[in-house]
Amino acid sequence: MQGRTISEMNVGDSASTSLTITESHVVLFAGIIGDFNPVHLDDVAAKNSQFKGRISHGMLVGSLFSSILGMQLPGVGTIYLSQELKFIKPVYLNDTITATITIKEIVAEKNRVIFDTTATNQNGDAVVVGSATVMPPKE
Amino acid sequence: MQGRTISEMNVGDSASTSLTITESHVVLFAGIIGDFNPVHLDDVAAKNSQFKGRISHGMLVGSLFSSILGMQLPGVGTIYLSQELKFIKPVYLNDTITATITIKEIVAEKNRVIFDTTATNQNGDAVVVGSATVMPPKE
Amino acid sequence: MQGRTISEMNVGDSASTSLTITESHVVLFAGIIGDFNPVHLDDVAAKNSQFKGRISHGMLVGSLFSSILGMQLPGVGTIYLSQELKFIKPVYLNDTITATITIKEIVAEKNRVIFDTTATNQNGDAVVVGSATVMPPKE
Amino acid sequence: MQGRTISEMNVGDSASTSLTITESHVVLFAGIIGDFNPVHLDDVAAKNSQFKGRISHGMLVGSLFSSILGMQLPGVGTIYLSQELKFIKPVYLNDTITATITIKEIVAEKNRVIFDTTATNQNGDAVVVGSATVMPPKE
Repeated sequence: MQGRTISEMNVGDSASTSLTITESHVVLFAGIIGDFNPVHLDDVAAKNSQFKGRISHGMLVGSLFSSILGMQLPGVGTIYLSQELKFIKPVYLNDTITATITIKEIVAEKNRVIFDTTATNQNGDAVVVGSATVMPPKE
Repeated sequence: MQGRTISEMNVGDSASTSLTITESHVVLFAGIIGDFNPVHLDDVAAKNSQFKGRISHGMLVGSLFSSILGMQLPGVGTIYLSQELKFIKPVYLNDTITATITIKEIVAEKNRVIFDTTATNQNGDAVVVGSATVMPPKE
Repeated sequence: MQGRTISEMNVGDSASTSLTITESHVVLFAGIIGDFNPVHLDDVAAKNSQFKGRISHGMLVGSLFSSILGMQLPGVGTIYLSQELKFIKPVYLNDTITATITIKEIVAEKNRVIFDTTATNQNGDAVVVGSATVMPPKE
Repeated sequence: MQGRTISEMNVGDSASTSLTITESHVVLFAGIIGDFNPVHLDDVAAKNSQFKGRISHGMLVGSLFSSILGMQLPGVGTIYLSQELKFIKPVYLNDTITATITIKEIVAEKNRVIFDTTATNQNGDAVVVGSATVMPPKE
């Protein structure tokens, strides 16, 4: 169950996962990282905020890219080097997010693969975008 | 409990939080984002990997910056625009991480604040570094 | 708080427990066992599936029998030998399940007790059925 | 990401997953199903029991088969019909379990696949064994 090596990947290869971001996910994530911002956990304050309701932590959504990199593409044995994230739209409780990673560059001599990372909601709107750099497992 | 506005912050201001990353944090984080990579959850495989033991998800550590931004500096009302992360050393179960954010640039006309973000372990080694851009609450 | 010994039980004795299977139960159960099948965690995909909505893991429901055996009948000190489960109807989020165990056979010379195990939903429909064999605590 | 149909599987095909069963897994599992038997959650009582220490719920271990069936083989779209489990050895906190499913029979005319299901610990001892019957996704 070792992941793919650099010679087994091509620019344009992609993988994705989908998840409904429930209240339970947000409550647990808040508890792990200690982010109890009212916009995530205080329904009254969130309704009175510019967001008009509780939203997910952006980093919860961004962490889905980590799962795909470690579980699917390249998969087990991957070393995560960096992640850039832009939070472009709020993710509300019960939104269903599809996170997708797509290879945009392969630097074979350094054993590096660079991915575009995009998360969209159930309406097809991009919510979190960015890029990731990893070292795939060695040959 | 509104956070600081742009006129209440200066370059060099900083805030931090510390957390011992326990097995419980890693098990819960894995369950939320669906990342069951053996290096996080399989003690036998992790000991046989190059890491010689189970490590935290890098995004768990990186998410601590999100907490400080939303809870302390600027605090409540902050809008998170982007986060860049470099994962430079592994974080092992039971490592105690101190995450620190420091203002490096204030772009008053756009209401933007840019932070250096650095997480170190109990030995003082930097483990996750990067930068974050936020919109602090309006005056 | 020791459970009942074999001489303190009779064929036909039964015990039960009830639980509303919430989204939180399903999210946590998925996280523990690593089962992120979309029919459990992706509301959009689940609505488009033959089930028309998110359903519980069958093993979550089946695990309720384990609780009754260990907590009520025979109770503390019971050794669980085997469990057979048939998943006959889907359990939806927010269904209220009543799990019941009933002694169908006592094999005194081997210190074995065999139970019918039946879980029904709030409409009285059987959803998970089967049987369990245990060793009750010794005299 | 649909799973395999019956014509894409053969007797002998197998899949597996590994997990270190931590205290966190057992605490959370107990909380979901309400099984607070001292042998799982009371370290003093468990040390004084015949097991000489806290053990996992057998159903937690057995539920790993469910994950493999739904996530890997046959995968997404599988309908779980039945599971038989025998709990043959205790699983202690921090044991690393490898759960494996292997096709033993294919009943094409009924769209049924029957699996042997075996979980072993880090010493190679079988701890939970049994069989599962599923309907793979339709062609």
